[in-house]
Amino acid sequence: MDSDKLAIGIDIGGTNTKYGIIDIEGNILHRGSIKTKDYPGINDFADALASSLKPLISEAGGLQSIKGIGIGAPNGNFYTGNIEYAPNLHWKGIIPMAELISETLGLPTTLTNDANAAAMGEKKYGAAKNMRDFIVLTLGTGVGSGIFINGQLVYGHDGFAGELGHNIIIPGGRYHPGTGSHGCLEMYASATGVVYTAHEILKERIDEPSLLRKYPEESITSRIVYECAIQGDALAHEVFLRTGTILGHAMANFAMFSSPEAFILFGGLVRAGELLFHPVKVAFEENLLPIFKNKIKIIASQLFESDAAILGASALVRD
Amino acid sequence: MDSDKLAIGIDIGGTNTKYGIIDIEGNILHRGSIKTKDYPGINDFADALASSLKPLISEAGGLQSIKGIGIGAPNGNFYTGNIEYAPNLHWKGIIPMAELISETLGLPTTLTNDANAAAMGEKKYGAAKNMRDFIVLTLGTGVGSGIFINGQLVYGHDGFAGELGHNIIIPGGRYHPGTGSHGCLEMYASATGVVYTAHEILKERIDEPSLLRKYPEESITSRIVYECAIQGDALAHEVFLRTGTILGHAMANFAMFSSPEAFILFGGLVRAGELLFHPVKVAFEENLLPIFKNKIKIIASQLFESDAAILGASALVRD
Repeated sequence: MDSDKLAIGIDIGGTNTKYGIIDIEGNILHRGSIKTKDYPGINDFADALASSLKPLISEAGGLQSIKGIGIGAPNGNFYTGNIEYAPNLHWKGIIPMAELISETLGLPTTLTNDANAAAMGEKKYGAAKNMRDFIVLTLGTGVGSGIFINGQLVYGHDGFAGELGHNIIIPGGRYHPGTGSHGCLEMYASATGVVYTAHEILKERIDEPSLLRKYPEESITSRIVYECAIQGDALAHEVFLRTGTILGHAMANFAMFSSPEAFILFGGLVRAGELLFHPVKVAFEENLLPIFKNKIKIIASQLFESDAAILGASALVRD
Repeated sequence: MDSDKLAIGIDIGGTNTKYGIIDIEGNILHRGSIKTKDYPGINDFADALASSLKPLISEAGGLQSIKGIGIGAPNGNFYTGNIEYAPNLHWKGIIPMAELISETLGLPTTLTNDANAAAMGEKKYGAAKNMRDFIVLTLGTGVGSGIFINGQLVYGHDGFAGELGHNIIIPGGRYHPGTGSHGCLEMYASATGVVYTAHEILKERIDEPSLLRKYPEESITSRIVYECAIQGDALAHEVFLRTGTILGHAMANFAMFSSPEAFILFGGLVRAGELLFHPVKVAFEENLLPIFKNKIKIIASQLFESDAAILGASALVRD
């Protein structure tokens, strides 16, 4: 049966492109990766990807045992199969990635954006298995989102729906160098945002001692802020408090749009645990209309971060 | 055939409850209204509604020629058929309105909130006839919303989705007496919001003459602001500029959630025309990610305001 076949999931990121061959139960049977940045030309990239995938495909029983390929990529458009103007990839303009990979490997290929792929992964194999309405927020270098409504991924009229990281949450707030906007969620609730907030608080409270002051300002990362916070540093705690408060406020707005059963938080920032989740939950409930209070779940992804993207991409093939 | 039958549409508002008997093409064959506030008890209300509807039903051919009843009401829940904690109605708590009307009139009855009913009306008979993804914003005393995604009205996991008027757009902004929140869209982009903004600007520019200063402050309405604006009053223009700018910013956030083909603006404030639409469009485009720019339409409802609510409610029966 077709549905018993394997699926290939590919996660194209700015630095690495990871792939796996995945069975119907979500087991990753074979996996590998290539460096995205090593291939300035898109055809060279497709050839390199094909060369590293072909031995795995043979090992898995050849092309006839594979149902298809699913790709998650920044600014990936499900309707067109193109990657369009992705600021974090070095290929510029419109890249017909699904068509190219399909031709190179001889398998039907579907593409979506990376956060949508994460949401597909949560629906098929993760925390959202039995949910029809939920929102996945990916909190990494940037903030991405994948939205399910009525059991379907939301693509919008043009395939670009779900750019919640670019919602303007603080009018006139931080400048986003990639888009020119001011005050979008991504500038606060990402690893990048945590670093900005740390710099901000270190300046505001110039007389207050902090473990963070041991580090040259330009070397502070969200991981360092986390490590200082778990050692009890008050300034580092304040960084997560502000980050979580802004994220919770934004999530309340999103909840009043689609009233999801749950938010699933995913990505590097989620490792901060209750340092982040506590202020998120407080600000979330505070900003909700009464009819929404105390019934929408906020949970951390249960998928291994490194696997979720390729699992999610492979789920495109199963859909 | 069942689909040739007539449908009853009922629009329950804080002041009036309007109803109509509607044919498959959206012609309102019979219509009427009762004063909602005349009936402190919910059973008395149902009886009064039944008494005034029954002669119309007879005239239309009796119960057997009616397919069912659709009701639009503030805080109406499609899943439960209840009106739940509606701040603008004098009945408190949870009112099982669909069940009550169905029992009283002997017809299958479906209920949704008033803005969702307006969106159903736009989809069935108005500007959104051929659209799968659009957002209706009702700009009246308050701000309501009805959202279509993938050709379906968005209800969320609990039936309460689409409360965009309660999105917090200006953190720490105007206090909402009904909900206790600060800075929600409804406090700016409604008739009420226009009056607040007029008061604000009259105070800020105390030395600047304005036609608005002819009116005692407490008597200023959104209609008066409009009339002063079309006479060229600079302060009144500024009121619509600020209103439209905040609304456009909010709409950009909503667009980056669901990427609709169009926004359809509906309700009293829409009569301000380009005074409102021009700043809305400017702020909307300014706040969008590049991939969304210059492709999402912003249009005024084409339905008569007094008819749209009952047309939309009746469309529930056709769905």
